[in-house]
Amino acid sequence: MYTLFGNATSGNCYKVRLALAYRGQPYRYVDVDSLHGQTRSPAFLAFNPFGKIPALAQSGQPPMVESNAIAWSLLEATPLWPDDARARQSCLAWMFWEQYSHEPKVAVARSWVKLGRDREQPQAFATLRDEASGALDHMERLLSKQPYLIGDAVSVADLCLYAYSHKAGDIGLDLAGWPGLQAWCQRLSAQPWWVTIDDHPTPLALDEALAGLAN
Amino acid sequence: MYTLFGNATSGNCYKVRLALAYRGQPYRYVDVDSLHGQTRSPAFLAFNPFGKIPALAQSGQPPMVESNAIAWSLLEATPLWPDDARARQSCLAWMFWEQYSHEPKVAVARSWVKLGRDREQPQAFATLRDEASGALDHMERLLSKQPYLIGDAVSVADLCLYAYSHKAGDIGLDLAGWPGLQAWCQRLSAQPWWVTIDDHPTPLALDEALAGLAN
Repeated sequence: MYTLFGNATSGNCYKVRLALAYRGQPYRYVDVDSLHGQTRSPAFLAFNPFGKIPALAQSGQPPMVESNAIAWSLLEATPLWPDDARARQSCLAWMFWEQYSHEPKVAVARSWVKLGRDREQPQAFATLRDEASGALDHMERLLSKQPYLIGDAVSVADLCLYAYSHKAGDIGLDLAGWPGLQAWCQRLSAQPWWVTIDDHPTPLALDEALAGLAN
Repeated sequence: MYTLFGNATSGNCYKVRLALAYRGQPYRYVDVDSLHGQTRSPAFLAFNPFGKIPALAQSGQPPMVESNAIAWSLLEATPLWPDDARARQSCLAWMFWEQYSHEPKVAVARSWVKLGRDREQPQAFATLRDEASGALDHMERLLSKQPYLIGDAVSVADLCLYAYSHKAGDIGLDLAGWPGLQAWCQRLSAQPWWVTIDDHPTPLALDEALAGLAN
C-alpha cells in the first residue's frame, strides 16, 4: 500500500490525493509540518533527499517526488493521460507552466497569508497577488472557450492546475472575476470520484511511518 | 519542418535544440529577444499566448511550449524516455524539480549577470547564487554515485538538467567544486549527437517567420 507524506492544506499534496482518488487507491497518510522544518530533519532527508512533500512511498522503494510527476505517474495508464501526442505535449506544458508561472505566485501568496507576511510586506504581497491574477487570466483565455485544459475531456493537467486555482479566494482573488475558470472548477468538482482538499485518511505519526518504511 | 523560436543564450531553448539534434531533425531557427519584449508583442502573443520562448511550431498547428514539455514530446518515442515506469516517474520528477528549484536559481542568477543586476544588488545576488549552489549540491549527491540522473543510461532528464548546469561558471560557480556533476557534463557532451549551446542554424527574421507560419 502507498504511504503519502503530505500536508492537509498543501495544494501540491492535494494533487496526489486527487490522483489516488481517481484510481480508487487506498493509502496511508502522514501529515508533515513542512512550514516548521519537518521536511529538513535528518530522518526525513534520509528517506527523501529532495526534502519536500508530497512524497509517495511504497515499502522497499525510494519515494516518488514532485507533485506533478507523482500525479502523472499514478495516471499515465488511465484515460486522464491523453492518447494523442499533441494533447500529451499540451498536458505536460500546462503542468510545467503551473510549476514555473502559477504555483510560485498563487500558492506562494497563499502561504504568505498563512504566515502573516501579507501584512508585514503589503507592497510585495500586492505585486505577488497581481502576478497570481495574471496567471488566472492566462487560464481564463483558454477556459472561456473550452471545458477542460486539453479540450473536451478531463486530463491530469486539470487536476494539477485545479489544486491551487480553486483556492484563489484565500489570497483575495474572487473566482467570480474569472467565469470560465470558475465553471471549470465546478465541472471538475462534480466528477463522481472527486475529493476536496480537506479529505484525507487519519494521519499516522511521522516517526512511526518512517520507521515502518525502513522495516 | 519545425520552426524553433528561441534565443541563442537561453538554456531553456538549448534543451529543445539538444532534443532536435538527438532526433537528427533539421529545423528553421528564429532568434527572439525576450529580454527586450519581443515575446510580449501582439504579433508574438497571437502566435503563442504563453508569451514565452522556446516555442516549436509546425505550419497549421499551435506551437508547442514549455521547454521541458517540448523536449519530452520530441523524445517520448526514443530510448531517451525510459521503458520502466519508476524510471519515467523519476525522469519527470527531475524535470519538474529543474523548473521549480534549479532554473529559478541557476538561470535567473545568470540573467542577472547578463543584465548587470549582480552589481546593482550584490546581497540579493549572493543569496541567489547560494541557492543555485545548493541546487548543484543536490544533483552532486546523486551524480557522485551514478553516471546519469536515471542510472546507467542517458534520458531526457539529463538534457533538461544539463542546459543551465553546465553554465554555472557564468555565475561564478566553478564546476570543479562538484566533481560528479562535472564528470556527468563531460559524459553528456561526449555523446556523438551532442551540440553546444552556441550551435544553431542561421536565424530567420521574426516578422517573416510569423508571417510564414500564418500562410
